Amino acid sequence: MVRREKPVPPLIPKVAASRISRYLRYLEDLEDRGETTTSSRQLGAALGVTAAQVRKDLGYFGQFGFPGLGYKISNLIPEIRRILGTERSWNLVMVGIGNLGNALLRYKGFAAHGFRVVALFDSNPKLVGRTLEGLTVYPITKIAQVVHAEGVELAILSAPASAAQEVADLLVGAGIRGIYNFAPVLLNLPEDVAYVSVDLSVELEQLAFLVSNRDRELERRNAGGESGT
Amino acid sequence: MVRREKPVPPLIPKVAASRISRYLRYLEDLEDRGETTTSSRQLGAALGVTAAQVRKDLGYFGQFGFPGLGYKISNLIPEIRRILGTERSWNLVMVGIGNLGNALLRYKGFAAHGFRVVALFDSNPKLVGRTLEGLTVYPITKIAQVVHAEGVELAILSAPASAAQEVADLLVGAGIRGIYNFAPVLLNLPEDVAYVSVDLSVELEQLAFLVSNRDRELERRNAGGESGT
Repeated sequence: MVRREKPVPPLIPKVAASRISRYLRYLEDLEDRGETTTSSRQLGAALGVTAAQVRKDLGYFGQFGFPGLGYKISNLIPEIRRILGTERSWNLVMVGIGNLGNALLRYKGFAAHGFRVVALFDSNPKLVGRTLEGLTVYPITKIAQVVHAEGVELAILSAPASAAQEVADLLVGAGIRGIYNFAPVLLNLPEDVAYVSVDLSVELEQLAFLVSNRDRELERRNAGGESGT
Repeated sequence: MVRREKPVPPLIPKVAASRISRYLRYLEDLEDRGETTTSSRQLGAALGVTAAQVRKDLGYFGQFGFPGLGYKISNLIPEIRRILGTERSWNLVMVGIGNLGNALLRYKGFAAHGFRVVALFDSNPKLVGRTLEGLTVYPITKIAQVVHAEGVELAILSAPASAAQEVADLLVGAGIRGIYNFAPVLLNLPEDVAYVSVDLSVELEQLAFLVSNRDRELERRNAGGESGT
């Protein structure tokens, strides 16, 4: 019997899993360029971490590679995919087909990594019934029905901030197990629903902040301010 | 005289700046809904941090708000924009008009926050000369010329991984001060060029990992494995 009372602790730190995804991208790139082996030193240099960190990260999952010989790329790639759960494909639904949803729908990078959007939802009656990228837009009231019929486990939430929690509740009610949230809000979700959040304009704002902050620091220094040497 | 030998330390931690962007999104949302005041408790609850953390984050920039009275939203929003450097608008160029670049170009969220894409670049001769969203696609050899002519400070790098460093070098050579990197590689950049990185498919892979990991943990528990109680 599956017990769901308690949140299940992740087996490895999330930050390590994130690096492991990035090792995979780099290994795929090496393979495309015809390389057959790599080393923890090379992987570390590409990702900006130490070789020891690479060995530790890959060590969470058992013993790969041979001391002094490095890793065979054709072995490591499927092993990492198995670890990440991307050796299989995943069905997704997307909720919110505004600007951002439309943009994400046209991005082919998800499909290239085994993630297949199978249905679209929006609450706007002008969008419902339209076909975008070969997919029909359903009203959000159909979420549970489609999720069950298609055996969908993951959802992209690209609805506006003000509608995000309502949509998240519908997705959770439909049995979705993971939400990729693009709305700039914190979602209240049950412990057994996983999520990741990305806010594209917050990230760009951070870049502007870093540049502005440098200007101010330089001004302070040039004015003979407190941080001068 | 501006001295550039040493990296300029940020005035506040990057992680606080990231939260401050999210406070701003939430405040904008409150204002849209007709609210006029908020509190550190309300902001904290929306973002999943403590009220004390909110007061500390906003305290990096001086004294806002009044004990017991909270914050006046119409004062706080422009103050945060000034802190983040988004009280002004920023010109951007975008390099790499493939799938992802095309998707990002159609996303209106950047313009809504004062970020204006003014020129597009690609190395593909089939794309050069085309007009997308009212902007001409230039060859990447024109980057320096256009960046200077338009007074551009920031760039979106949406080129493939294999071309990303070469493009970054061109952008740095042209005097770009900040790069928003969507390529799944670590860029080698001078200390005085800021950057943020987002990898949309790595984030989705992380979601699949979190869900898969839970399945495995449940399997281990059900098998009476080592983590059973």
